[in-house]
Amino acid sequence: MHSSPGGPPRSVIDLESGMAFGCDYNPEQWDQRVWLEDVAAMKQAGVNFVAINIFGWSHLEPRQGEYNFTNLDAIIELLHANGISINLGTATASPPPWLTTTFPEVLPTVEDGTRRYPGGRQAFCPSSPIYRHHAALLVEQVAQRYGSHPAVALWHVSNEIGCHNAHCHCEGSAAAFRGWLKRRYGTLEALNTAWGTDFWSQRVSDWKEIFTPRLTLSSRNPGQSMDFRRFSSDELRSNYRLEAEIIRRHSTIPVTTNFMVTTHIRNMDYFTWTADMDIIANDHYLDHRLGDPTTELSFAADLTRGLANNAPWILMEHSTGAVNWQPHNVAKAPGEMMRNSLAHVARGADGVCFFQWRASLQGSEKFHSALMPHAGQDSALWREVVELGATVASLAEVAGSRVESSVAFVFSWESWWAADAETRPSAAINYLEQAHAIYAAVQATGTTVTMVAPGAELSGFKLVIVPTLYMVSDDHAAQINNYVHNGGHAIVTFYSGIVDEDDRVRTGGYPGAFREMLGIRTEEFCPLLPGQQLELSDGRTSSLWSERTTLQGADAVVSYVDGPNPGGPAVTVNGFGQGQAWYVGTVLDSDALLHLVSGALEGAAVAPVAPEATAELEMVRRSHPGGSYLFVINHGRQEQQLVAAGHEILTQTDISQTLTVPAGAVRVIREEVRP
Amino acid sequence: MHSSPGGPPRSVIDLESGMAFGCDYNPEQWDQRVWLEDVAAMKQAGVNFVAINIFGWSHLEPRQGEYNFTNLDAIIELLHANGISINLGTATASPPPWLTTTFPEVLPTVEDGTRRYPGGRQAFCPSSPIYRHHAALLVEQVAQRYGSHPAVALWHVSNEIGCHNAHCHCEGSAAAFRGWLKRRYGTLEALNTAWGTDFWSQRVSDWKEIFTPRLTLSSRNPGQSMDFRRFSSDELRSNYRLEAEIIRRHSTIPVTTNFMVTTHIRNMDYFTWTADMDIIANDHYLDHRLGDPTTELSFAADLTRGLANNAPWILMEHSTGAVNWQPHNVAKAPGEMMRNSLAHVARGADGVCFFQWRASLQGSEKFHSALMPHAGQDSALWREVVELGATVASLAEVAGSRVESSVAFVFSWESWWAADAETRPSAAINYLEQAHAIYAAVQATGTTVTMVAPGAELSGFKLVIVPTLYMVSDDHAAQINNYVHNGGHAIVTFYSGIVDEDDRVRTGGYPGAFREMLGIRTEEFCPLLPGQQLELSDGRTSSLWSERTTLQGADAVVSYVDGPNPGGPAVTVNGFGQGQAWYVGTVLDSDALLHLVSGALEGAAVAPVAPEATAELEMVRRSHPGGSYLFVINHGRQEQQLVAAGHEILTQTDISQTLTVPAGAVRVIREEVRP
Amino acid sequence: MHSSPGGPPRSVIDLESGMAFGCDYNPEQWDQRVWLEDVAAMKQAGVNFVAINIFGWSHLEPRQGEYNFTNLDAIIELLHANGISINLGTATASPPPWLTTTFPEVLPTVEDGTRRYPGGRQAFCPSSPIYRHHAALLVEQVAQRYGSHPAVALWHVSNEIGCHNAHCHCEGSAAAFRGWLKRRYGTLEALNTAWGTDFWSQRVSDWKEIFTPRLTLSSRNPGQSMDFRRFSSDELRSNYRLEAEIIRRHSTIPVTTNFMVTTHIRNMDYFTWTADMDIIANDHYLDHRLGDPTTELSFAADLTRGLANNAPWILMEHSTGAVNWQPHNVAKAPGEMMRNSLAHVARGADGVCFFQWRASLQGSEKFHSALMPHAGQDSALWREVVELGATVASLAEVAGSRVESSVAFVFSWESWWAADAETRPSAAINYLEQAHAIYAAVQATGTTVTMVAPGAELSGFKLVIVPTLYMVSDDHAAQINNYVHNGGHAIVTFYSGIVDEDDRVRTGGYPGAFREMLGIRTEEFCPLLPGQQLELSDGRTSSLWSERTTLQGADAVVSYVDGPNPGGPAVTVNGFGQGQAWYVGTVLDSDALLHLVSGALEGAAVAPVAPEATAELEMVRRSHPGGSYLFVINHGRQEQQLVAAGHEILTQTDISQTLTVPAGAVRVIREEVRP
Repeated sequence: MHSSPGGPPRSVIDLESGMAFGCDYNPEQWDQRVWLEDVAAMKQAGVNFVAINIFGWSHLEPRQGEYNFTNLDAIIELLHANGISINLGTATASPPPWLTTTFPEVLPTVEDGTRRYPGGRQAFCPSSPIYRHHAALLVEQVAQRYGSHPAVALWHVSNEIGCHNAHCHCEGSAAAFRGWLKRRYGTLEALNTAWGTDFWSQRVSDWKEIFTPRLTLSSRNPGQSMDFRRFSSDELRSNYRLEAEIIRRHSTIPVTTNFMVTTHIRNMDYFTWTADMDIIANDHYLDHRLGDPTTELSFAADLTRGLANNAPWILMEHSTGAVNWQPHNVAKAPGEMMRNSLAHVARGADGVCFFQWRASLQGSEKFHSALMPHAGQDSALWREVVELGATVASLAEVAGSRVESSVAFVFSWESWWAADAETRPSAAINYLEQAHAIYAAVQATGTTVTMVAPGAELSGFKLVIVPTLYMVSDDHAAQINNYVHNGGHAIVTFYSGIVDEDDRVRTGGYPGAFREMLGIRTEEFCPLLPGQQLELSDGRTSSLWSERTTLQGADAVVSYVDGPNPGGPAVTVNGFGQGQAWYVGTVLDSDALLHLVSGALEGAAVAPVAPEATAELEMVRRSHPGGSYLFVINHGRQEQQLVAAGHEILTQTDISQTLTVPAGAVRVIREEVRP
Repeated sequence: MHSSPGGPPRSVIDLESGMAFGCDYNPEQWDQRVWLEDVAAMKQAGVNFVAINIFGWSHLEPRQGEYNFTNLDAIIELLHANGISINLGTATASPPPWLTTTFPEVLPTVEDGTRRYPGGRQAFCPSSPIYRHHAALLVEQVAQRYGSHPAVALWHVSNEIGCHNAHCHCEGSAAAFRGWLKRRYGTLEALNTAWGTDFWSQRVSDWKEIFTPRLTLSSRNPGQSMDFRRFSSDELRSNYRLEAEIIRRHSTIPVTTNFMVTTHIRNMDYFTWTADMDIIANDHYLDHRLGDPTTELSFAADLTRGLANNAPWILMEHSTGAVNWQPHNVAKAPGEMMRNSLAHVARGADGVCFFQWRASLQGSEKFHSALMPHAGQDSALWREVVELGATVASLAEVAGSRVESSVAFVFSWESWWAADAETRPSAAINYLEQAHAIYAAVQATGTTVTMVAPGAELSGFKLVIVPTLYMVSDDHAAQINNYVHNGGHAIVTFYSGIVDEDDRVRTGGYPGAFREMLGIRTEEFCPLLPGQQLELSDGRTSSLWSERTTLQGADAVVSYVDGPNPGGPAVTVNGFGQGQAWYVGTVLDSDALLHLVSGALEGAAVAPVAPEATAELEMVRRSHPGGSYLFVINHGRQEQQLVAAGHEILTQTDISQTLTVPAGAVRVIREEVRP
Repeated sequence: MHSSPGGPPRSVIDLESGMAFGCDYNPEQWDQRVWLEDVAAMKQAGVNFVAINIFGWSHLEPRQGEYNFTNLDAIIELLHANGISINLGTATASPPPWLTTTFPEVLPTVEDGTRRYPGGRQAFCPSSPIYRHHAALLVEQVAQRYGSHPAVALWHVSNEIGCHNAHCHCEGSAAAFRGWLKRRYGTLEALNTAWGTDFWSQRVSDWKEIFTPRLTLSSRNPGQSMDFRRFSSDELRSNYRLEAEIIRRHSTIPVTTNFMVTTHIRNMDYFTWTADMDIIANDHYLDHRLGDPTTELSFAADLTRGLANNAPWILMEHSTGAVNWQPHNVAKAPGEMMRNSLAHVARGADGVCFFQWRASLQGSEKFHSALMPHAGQDSALWREVVELGATVASLAEVAGSRVESSVAFVFSWESWWAADAETRPSAAINYLEQAHAIYAAVQATGTTVTMVAPGAELSGFKLVIVPTLYMVSDDHAAQINNYVHNGGHAIVTFYSGIVDEDDRVRTGGYPGAFREMLGIRTEEFCPLLPGQQLELSDGRTSSLWSERTTLQGADAVVSYVDGPNPGGPAVTVNGFGQGQAWYVGTVLDSDALLHLVSGALEGAAVAPVAPEATAELEMVRRSHPGGSYLFVINHGRQEQQLVAAGHEILTQTDISQTLTVPAGAVRVIREEVRP
C-alpha cells in the first residue's frame, strides 16, 4: 500500500502533474493515422495518463506462441515521445479465440452445468490451469519487454477481474474448491460442522463428494454457498497475484488492478485483496436503475477510500456520458461529468480516468460514451472534457491529501453475501439497499464517513454505523461491543449480529452478537408483506421488516402503533458502559431515518463538514499537514451560499467571507484556517 | 385405510392420549446434552408423538454399506423411556452425498436436459433403479431393527414425496415412461389415438420413439404431457410402495407418508395413493402469496379429509410461525397457531404436529419457525406452544369423531393438470383459483363440504359442486348427470366437461359432458383481457372469462350487460329430471358468487352448521354416534355471540344458552343435543 | 413473381373463381366418414381452395423409406371430384418421430448449448444435412406423384418456415455458418474488419475459431450476431429452395410457402426470399398483446403487398376466431372476421384462407378456432363463414387489381435486427413499435402506403417514410438522399442512418447517413427513463428518447421545453435540393405524430383515398386499367356516410351520391369514375 511517511504529500502515482487525468486507449481499433490525431488531442485535453493493452491478447499473440509486439512498441513510443505516462495492461482480460477453441475446457460453466461461450469477454474459468498457464506466458513476455520502460507509470493487471466470470462450476473449479476447503478446514469433520451438513442428510464422508453449489431442485446449503463465494473471490485474487508476481520479477513499477466498487458488482471481497495492491484503483459507473445514483457514487468513492486505508487512490474508469449496458442509458447533464469527477477527487481520488479515449465504431460497447465522442471534437462533450482536464490539472496541489472523519461505517462483503442468501426471512432483506439508505441519511447531514471492514480499529471514531451486519465473528462483534463500552457510540440496524462466520445462528434472542450492548432482545422476526406500511409513535412510518422485541435496559425511542407488534419498540437506545448504542429494528422511511441519524450524530458530538451542507450541497474536506481543501458540489437547481475563507481554485478567486456556488457548480477552496 | 366399524370412536393412531401432539425432531443436529433438555421440554409441552429419522441416511449409512445405528438406538430409547411415541422415518428422503457421487446417473434431469445437483434435498430421479436399490437396502435395515419396537406408533415413509423431484427427464425415466405406457395402452395404435399424434406429424411407429415431454421449440403434445404427469405420480407412489412393502414384511405398525395437500404442490394425484396408506397424514403451510391463506387452510384440511374418505387423519406438519421459503415469511399473530391447529382438528385431524421441534442453527431452513425458537423457552411463542399442547390434550375425547356434510365438492388432480395446460383458451384459467373461489363462497355461508374424487358416490348429498372439471370421463360425467336427474342439485363452473380422459374435446357445443343436464349450449369461449370487467344484469360484475351461450331449456339467472355477448346468459339454472343444475359461465366477483351459492344451497335445502357462521366465524361440527362437538373459530377482530348449549372444553365452562367468543379465540362445545 | 403484362387483370392463382376461399385441411385427424361431410360443407361455404398434406410426413413415411400414399391419393381425388382446388403441401414441416430418434443430431440446439426435443413441431436444425436429405427424398416422391395432377393449383412448401427453429447452435450449424462466412467475406481479414474483432480481443486467426453466437457471460459481438441472423434467414430460404427445385423438376404448377408477416415473427428477411416465390402468400393472426391489433393487420397486409412488389397475393392463413397461443385468446366479435378478411383483400389479397377447416379435437391447437367449430354447423360462427364465402365469391372481379399509392414506407429486417440489439442506447428502441407508430398515423389520415426495401426505386413517390432505419448501406442511403434532392419529400425518425451494413457507426454527428439531407447534427443520444415525459413547444409531449441536436440549416418545427436538452429541436424540417426532409428526434405522442404526418403529407401534396377516411373508417382503393374498387371498412361503433358513386357489391346496390356504412360493416364500391 502507498504511504507517505514524513515527507510532503505526494500523489498516489508518480506523475509530473500531481493529478492523473486520462483514459483507456484501444489503438488496436484504429489506423495508425488516427493515433497521431489522438495524441495531439490528448495533449489538448491535458491527458497525462493512458491505459493501453487492456484487451491486446489476440493482437500480441494471434496464434499460440507467436508473439508480435510491433504495434504495442509503436504506441508506447508515441505516447512516451509526447510525455504521456502509461498504465500498462497485461492483456489477459479476454483470451483470444484460439485459446478456447484449442482448449474448450477453459470455458466457464454456469450453475445448471451448461457452458458459456466466446463472443463477449472473460470467457474463461478463473481456476483453469490452462488459462493461467497461457496468461502467465504472455505476462512474462510483456513484463520482460516493458518492465523498465520509462513511460510506464503503473501496471494494470487484467481488467475488472471477476466482472462476469466470478463463479465457475466446471470440474476443474470443483477440484480447486476441494483444495481450498482442505486448506480452510483440514478435516472433513470440521467442514461438516461448518456447513451444518446434519441438516437434510448432507454429511460428507469423502472429499470427492464435494462439488461447487450447482443448481439444485430445492434450496442449497448456505455454508457451501458461502464458502464458494469466498473461494471464488480468492481464485480471482490468485489470478491477480500470479500476474503481479511475474511482473514484480521484471519491474519495480507499482502494480494494481481496477476494482469495481459499484452497485451491481459484489463477488469480490476486496478487503482481502488490498494487501496485494501497490495502489488502489476503482471503476465506477452511475447506475440509473437506482433511485439516487449520485449518492451511490459518493458511497462507492468512500468505500474505495476505505479499501485504500484512507490513502489516496485512482479513479481508473468512469464515463463522460451514457454507458451502453443499462436498460436506459442516460446521458450526463451539462456539468455532471465535472461534478462526478470532483466528487471522486473530494473523496480521495488522485486521478480521474475514463473508459475510453475514443468511442468505438464497432463491438458491443460502441454506444458507450468516451472522451472523443462519435461526433468528434466539435461537440459540447469534448469541450467539457478539455475543461475538466484543465480543472484536474489545477488541483495538482490537492494530490496526496486525505479525508478525515470521525464516523466509521462498517461494510462487509461477507454479510452482503450471507444476508442476501437464497432463503432468508424476507426477500426485503437487501444488504446494499440498507447500507445505502443509512449512508444517504448520514450524507444528508453533511457528515463524511470512513468505511472500515469488520474487525477494524474503531477507537479513533466518535460514532460507528453498523448496517445489517448479519454475519460477524465473535471477535469482530466483541470489538464493536468493547468500543461502545469504552465510550463509543453505535447505530446498529436490523438483521445484524445474527450468525457467526459459519452462518450459524446465535441463540437466546436476536441480535445475538449485540443483544447486551443494545439492551434489547428480539424473540421473532416479523417481515411485512410488500406494500404494508406501519405507523410509528412519532407519526412517521416504516415498512418491509419488523421484530417482536422486548427492552432489556434500552429505552424505546420510537414504537409501533400498529402491525404485528403494536406498542413494541421500533428504535431503541441503550447506555452501555461509557457509550451509547442505537438499534433500528425496521426499515424507516427516509425522513425517520434522517431524524434518527441526526440525533445520534448530535449525541456523539459529530460535527458536519460545514453547517451549510445538505443532501444537495455535498461538502467534503481533504487535508494534509500543511493545509486543507473544502470541496463544495452543488447538485441542486438553486445557487447556494456558504461562509468560507481562502482561495477558490476553479475560479481562481480569493474568498474572504462568503462563497456563492451556482446551481450545478463545483468549488474547491484552499482554506485559510484549518478548521 | 383406517375404519372404526362398530366400536367406540378411537383416534386414528394408537396413542395413550386420543390426540397426537408433536413434531419432527432432528437430533442429528444437536449434542446429546441437548437431547435431555429437549425431552424434558417436550414433556412440559405435552408432546406425545415425535417424528425422527426423516433425514438420517447420511448418518445411518455414512459410506456405502456401512451402517451405524448407535445414535438412532439411543434417541429411540430416550424417547421411549419418557413415554413419547415415535413416528419413525425411513430416512430415504435425501440420499447421502456418496450415493450421487458414486452413481451420478441417480441425479434428476429437468426438461431442458440439464441435471440438477446435490446440495439441497430429493436430488434423485424417482425412477432410478440405483436409488431404489440403495433405499430398499436401508429400509430393510431400519424395518428389521425397529419393526417391533414398542415406542414406534407409526411408520413415516420418506418425506414429502415428490416435493421437488416429481418430474425427471433422464434416459432412465424415459425408459420407465415407455414401460408405463405399454401397460396403459398395450399397442402403439392405442397410444397414437390417445395422444392425437395425427396432429403435427407426431405419429409414433416404434416404442423407442417415445420420450418424456422435454422442452420443445413450440408447444408440446398435451396427451404426452398428461400421461407424463400420471406416470410421475405413479412412479412416486411406487417409491412409497417399495418401502411400505419392506416395512410390512417386518412390522405390523401402520405405515404412511406425509402428503402435501397445500396450495403450491400439485404433482401427486393423491386420490390414487390412498389405498396404500394405513392412515392419511398431511403437511400444510399457510401461503402468504395467496389473498386468503386462512381459507386455503380449511380447503386443504377438507381435501385431506376427503382423501381419508372422511375418516380422521393426522396433521403431520405445520408451523408455529414463519416459514423460510416464501418471499416474505410472515410470522403468526398471537393466537393464530391455536386457530390454525384447531381448524385442522375441526376438519378431522386427530393430531397436531409441526416441523420442527427445535429451530436449526444452520442449513437452508434455519429461519423456519419451530416449537423451540432460537430465542428459547423464555418466549411468547414457547408459551403458546405449551398452551396449545394442553388444549390438544383436552380435546382427546374428540378423536375418532367425524365431520358430516350434505354438500359434495368434486376435486380432480387430473383436471388441475389438464386445465392448466401449456396452451389453453386463456391463462386466466387456473384450476385451483376457481376451486378456491367457490369453496370460499360456500365456507362464508357456514356450510361444510365433503371433497370427493370424480366418480364418487353422490347419492347421499343434497348438492354437488363441480368447479372447472375440465377433464372428465364419460362414466364420471354420467354419474353426476344421473345424480341430478335423480333429484340432486349441482353447481358447475365454466371449463367443465370439455374433454375426456384423453384430453379429447367433446363436440356439438360446450360443456359437452354436462350440456344436457345444464340445458345450455356454448358455441364459443370468449376469454377477456386482463383488467377487462363485465357488467351483469344484477349490477354485479365478472371478469377473465365469458362464453357465447344459448339457453337450451335453462333459465338465465344473470345475463351480461356488455362484453363479447351482451344479453347472453352468464349464470343459468336448469331443471333436469328430478334435480336442478346451475351453470356459472364467467368469473363472478366474490359478492356475486356468494349470492349464487347461497341461493343454490337454499334451493337444495342445505342448512349451515349454525346460523351465526360467517366467513370470519368459522364453524364446523365433528360427531360420533354418542355426541357431537361444535368448533367455533373467530378469525375476526370483534367478539361474537352464538346460541349454544353444552360444555365448552377450552374454558371448561358449561353453556346453557349463549356463548361469547372473543376476537381471535377458539371454542369447542361438547353439544348437549345432537342437532 | 407473378406479373400481368398487357392482358386483363387476373387472379394471382389460377382458379375458376377469381378469389380463392379456403383453409388448411388435415384429414389425417378424421375418419373417412367425416371427409364426406367435410367436402359437402366446404361446398356450402364456397370453399374452392384447400391446403392439404402440411403435416403429413409421419403418415406418408411412417418408417424410414416406407411410403404410403393411399390416404393422400383418396383425399386428393375426393377434393378434385368436388371441384375444389388443392394447395399441396410437401409435408416436411414437422419431421416424424423416427427421424430424430434415429438421428438425434437433427435436433436443434439453443444458445446455451442444450437441445430442444420432439413433441411440438419444427424440431430440427435448419442446416442439418440429414434432415435435408430425408426431406428431399419425401418431396421427390410427392412432386413426382402429384406434379401434374389437375386438382393441384399451388405447391405449399413446408409450413411457416422458421417459425420456431430459425436459430440453431449445433456443431453442424457452426460448420454451415463458417461456410456462409467464407462465401460472404472470402478472407479472415475481411471478416475481422466487418465484425470489429479488435474490440475485446476477438480477432480470429483461423476459420475453425468461429462459432454461432452462443450464450456468453457478457454481451456478444454484434457483427457476429448480425451475420448469424443473415445466415439463419438464408439457411431457411435454402430449405425452401431445395424443395422448390425438386418440385420444379416434376411440375409446372406455381410454388410458394406461407410467409409469417405478423408482429411477433422477425427471423426471416423476406425481401431476400421473394425471388424464389411464384406467388406471395402470408399467414396473419391478430395479436391481442398489442395495443391496436387491427392496425397491425393493415400494416402486415401492406408489407406483404410490398413483398409481392405490389402485385396481388394470397392470405394463406388467418383465423375465424381466437387462436390458442396467446396468453388471453380473444374471440372475434360478430363481423370482425369479415372486416379482417376484406382488409386483407383491400390491400391486395386475391384469396382469403384460414387455419383450419375443422377444429381439432386433440393436440396443442385444439382450441384454435376453425371454419367448422367444435360446436358444429349450428353456430353463429359457421353462419358467418358461409356469409364470408359468398362475399369473397362476389368479389371475383376485384382479383388481379392493384393498390396504388404515392407514399413509400421503407421497411428493413436488417434494421429491425440491428436496432434491437443486445446492447443499445435504450431498451426503448424497438424497431417494430416505431414503424407501427408512424404507420398508424399515416393510416389515420386515410393514406395508403407502399412498403419497400431499402434501395428500392423511389422516384414515383411523393413522400417516403423512413422509420428507425438504423442500419443502411451507403448506397441505399444515397438513394434516399438523392430522391429528396431531386424533389422528393421524406420523414426520417430517430436512430436512422447510424451504422453501415457492418454495424459500423458513421462519425461526425448522428444521423450520419442523413445528416446533410436533414440539415441537423446530433452530438449525443439522450434516452429517457421509463415514465419520463417531455413537454414540447406546441404543448404536446414525447417520451423514451431525445437527442442533443443542433440545426445545420433545418428549421425547428417543435422544440423541447424541458428534459435533457431544453430549447433544442425535437422535430425539424429541411429544404434539401428540390425536396424537403423532416426529422423526428423523439417518440412523439400519437396526437403529435399525427399532426406531424398530416403536415408532411400536405406539404408533399399527398391526397387521402377519400376525405372521409379516418383511423376508424379504413378506406383503400384497388384498381386496374379498366376500373377501380373502393373498400370501406367501418371499425367504429357509429355508422358513417361518404360521398360515392358506383355499385356497392356486398349489398348489390347502386350508389349515386352517398353511401351509408353501418357500424362494423364493410362495403366495396365498383367506382363509376376513376378518381
